[in-house]
Amino acid sequence: MKYEDYVNLKYEPKETDLICEFFVEPLGISLKEAAGGVAAESSIGTWTETTTTKPYVEESAAKVFEINGNNIKIAYPIELFESGNMSNILSSIAGNVFGMKDLKNLRLNDIHFPAELIQSFRGPKYGIQGVRKLLKIPKRPLVGTIVKPKLGLKTEDHVKVAYSAWVGGCDLVKDDENLSNQKFNPFEERLVRTLEFRDRAERETGEKKVYLINISAKTDEMIRRAQLVQDHDGRYAMIDVLTVGWSALQTLRDRNFNLVLHAHRAGHASFTKNSKHGISMKVIAKIVRIVGFDQLHVGAGVGKMFETKKEVVENCNALRKKMNGIKPVFPVASGGLHPTLVPELLKIFGTDVIIQSGGGIHGNPLGTTAGTKAMRQAIDSSLKNIPLNEYAKTHKELRVALDKWSLE
Amino acid sequence: MKYEDYVNLKYEPKETDLICEFFVEPLGISLKEAAGGVAAESSIGTWTETTTTKPYVEESAAKVFEINGNNIKIAYPIELFESGNMSNILSSIAGNVFGMKDLKNLRLNDIHFPAELIQSFRGPKYGIQGVRKLLKIPKRPLVGTIVKPKLGLKTEDHVKVAYSAWVGGCDLVKDDENLSNQKFNPFEERLVRTLEFRDRAERETGEKKVYLINISAKTDEMIRRAQLVQDHDGRYAMIDVLTVGWSALQTLRDRNFNLVLHAHRAGHASFTKNSKHGISMKVIAKIVRIVGFDQLHVGAGVGKMFETKKEVVENCNALRKKMNGIKPVFPVASGGLHPTLVPELLKIFGTDVIIQSGGGIHGNPLGTTAGTKAMRQAIDSSLKNIPLNEYAKTHKELRVALDKWSLE
Repeated sequence: MKYEDYVNLKYEPKETDLICEFFVEPLGISLKEAAGGVAAESSIGTWTETTTTKPYVEESAAKVFEINGNNIKIAYPIELFESGNMSNILSSIAGNVFGMKDLKNLRLNDIHFPAELIQSFRGPKYGIQGVRKLLKIPKRPLVGTIVKPKLGLKTEDHVKVAYSAWVGGCDLVKDDENLSNQKFNPFEERLVRTLEFRDRAERETGEKKVYLINISAKTDEMIRRAQLVQDHDGRYAMIDVLTVGWSALQTLRDRNFNLVLHAHRAGHASFTKNSKHGISMKVIAKIVRIVGFDQLHVGAGVGKMFETKKEVVENCNALRKKMNGIKPVFPVASGGLHPTLVPELLKIFGTDVIIQSGGGIHGNPLGTTAGTKAMRQAIDSSLKNIPLNEYAKTHKELRVALDKWSLE
Repeated sequence: MKYEDYVNLKYEPKETDLICEFFVEPLGISLKEAAGGVAAESSIGTWTETTTTKPYVEESAAKVFEINGNNIKIAYPIELFESGNMSNILSSIAGNVFGMKDLKNLRLNDIHFPAELIQSFRGPKYGIQGVRKLLKIPKRPLVGTIVKPKLGLKTEDHVKVAYSAWVGGCDLVKDDENLSNQKFNPFEERLVRTLEFRDRAERETGEKKVYLINISAKTDEMIRRAQLVQDHDGRYAMIDVLTVGWSALQTLRDRNFNLVLHAHRAGHASFTKNSKHGISMKVIAKIVRIVGFDQLHVGAGVGKMFETKKEVVENCNALRKKMNGIKPVFPVASGGLHPTLVPELLKIFGTDVIIQSGGGIHGNPLGTTAGTKAMRQAIDSSLKNIPLNEYAKTHKELRVALDKWSLE
């Protein structure tokens, strides 16, 4: 089969097919050839005809069934994949194709997984409803912070920041993506001490509080750390899903710890940022959900990260919309967030969101506890449809935050 | 500290610092601010001043110590990282920074790891010399093939292709990146049957032969498969390192199987292809070496993949040059290779290379065995400095290959 033979615009995808949407920009070949080339390289074909092929193999060919400008859709027979093996699936559909010399750009914009493949993965254990039940917060947006500075803080100071955030009204306190088990703040000591202060904050506030400790490490060690967290009555673990990798995440999820799993996406923008090449964040969101995480960073549409509001909404849809019985996942808004941005954030996300603010809380001139109060006040006023400036008249923490961070 | 405070052009990096080379293209801010922003976000800083920082934390700041046009160098104190934890290191230096709104593009072009960090990883068990010893081939380039078609072939046909390649003169036969344990060719059956034919090919040729079976899967299953391979006297395993992920690779390497580990890089070009954004393949090569693989695909500089010869040479240097006692790794040339390209390939790679050809062997009109002979003939003639066309006068398999694949 030549590349063009992989194009069949009359083909009607089967329910069991996996469907990919690509943006394709050919280099020196026709779009049809480029489209067929992507289907070939990601299924059964290669650059030349081989003597070793068999007629029965051609039944497994992927088919380009739609070409719309530079946007194409490819259907892959499910037989091409191993169930429950994310590495295998991605090595086909998001593997060699990006490196083809005949393509200037190639972007995997979306994947539609067939039910049978989805069900071969674990999916989230808790999801949005499970998290809300655990935290006893049925409706409002959750408030999280990241302990800052992100690295360098000694354990005793780390603990104080966490405690100050919880008593101010934070539901979640989380490590930053690059804190794991450094000498200045070792994992076990941090775990034990921070959870002591979580318990204290719970007693003092009467609210449920959770600590998202970063367990990212090689698989064995990550699982050992997850076990430690569970043994110490931690309820959450956070993982840098992309630098850890899919195979370790699947094995972690298989262990079925009683831990909510929070996914940080450090590194994603190395391949999601260019809108013409790489892989969309929406795709990563779907995979994280299928593999079985309960929460995922999806950008914010405002703040310090690059994504547009439209992209963020698409990411949220990937996490929250119906998907073959797989639980919806909590989108986490993060990256340069502060109270002034809350009304806009709620417009983008709705209320099923975790608003994660680091600098926007610890940067409040009145300190972390006040910074958290300001964030909760911003949420309260938004939910009540009261303008922030109005609400700030009687809430000084919010007033201070609005004074520091005005919208440009 | 503001972003600019992370720039100190007078700073002289310590031997223990980790050094990164970035290409930075700011968006709406100065280059100095952008450079400092990258150093901040990848170490201890964030977008705003926080009340929670401590004077002792600033000692851990990363420092931009060189700015040369858009190319910058950043030094990271080793204390920022957890030894032996690749996910942790990458979440810092190749994490959030790519997503900063203030940067149009950011590319991590190189990493120089300090000896102490390198030594906290396993490194390759075999490396080039170990592989040469195993295969009893002290000097010449190794010849490998990939069973094609890449997917869809039933086990009995897969086995025949492998056998035909070995008896023609292939040293290595490998699975393709997306073959794992599909119904048409299940892992265990394929392992057992292919190794039977390997033994037969060894008896018939008197040469050592190896089968690189793809064990890519979730960590537990991958380790189970590695154990199976070892139990069946397999000598090699191949892994799709990027879709599997660093944490699983480290745990696999920790098991210290008596298996040569072959790294396929499926998916790399989603972030390596754009020369202004993402991560260079050279960086991936260094990481794969440090984590402990023995062979890695590095492109070819010719053929169907996009990389330039210069990039390929840099990848080879990352694998083969001295690196704190870590064994050199075999570069694997692959992607649209055929006998006509061999003289050029040897100019680019030298002789410490594995020439991996799928279509260029199985596409030989005389079949796989002839295709392999043609490849070996092309290598023999190149090593003897005889022009291919001259050598082909007395070697019909090469003649047929040259007729099919002329250089454009």
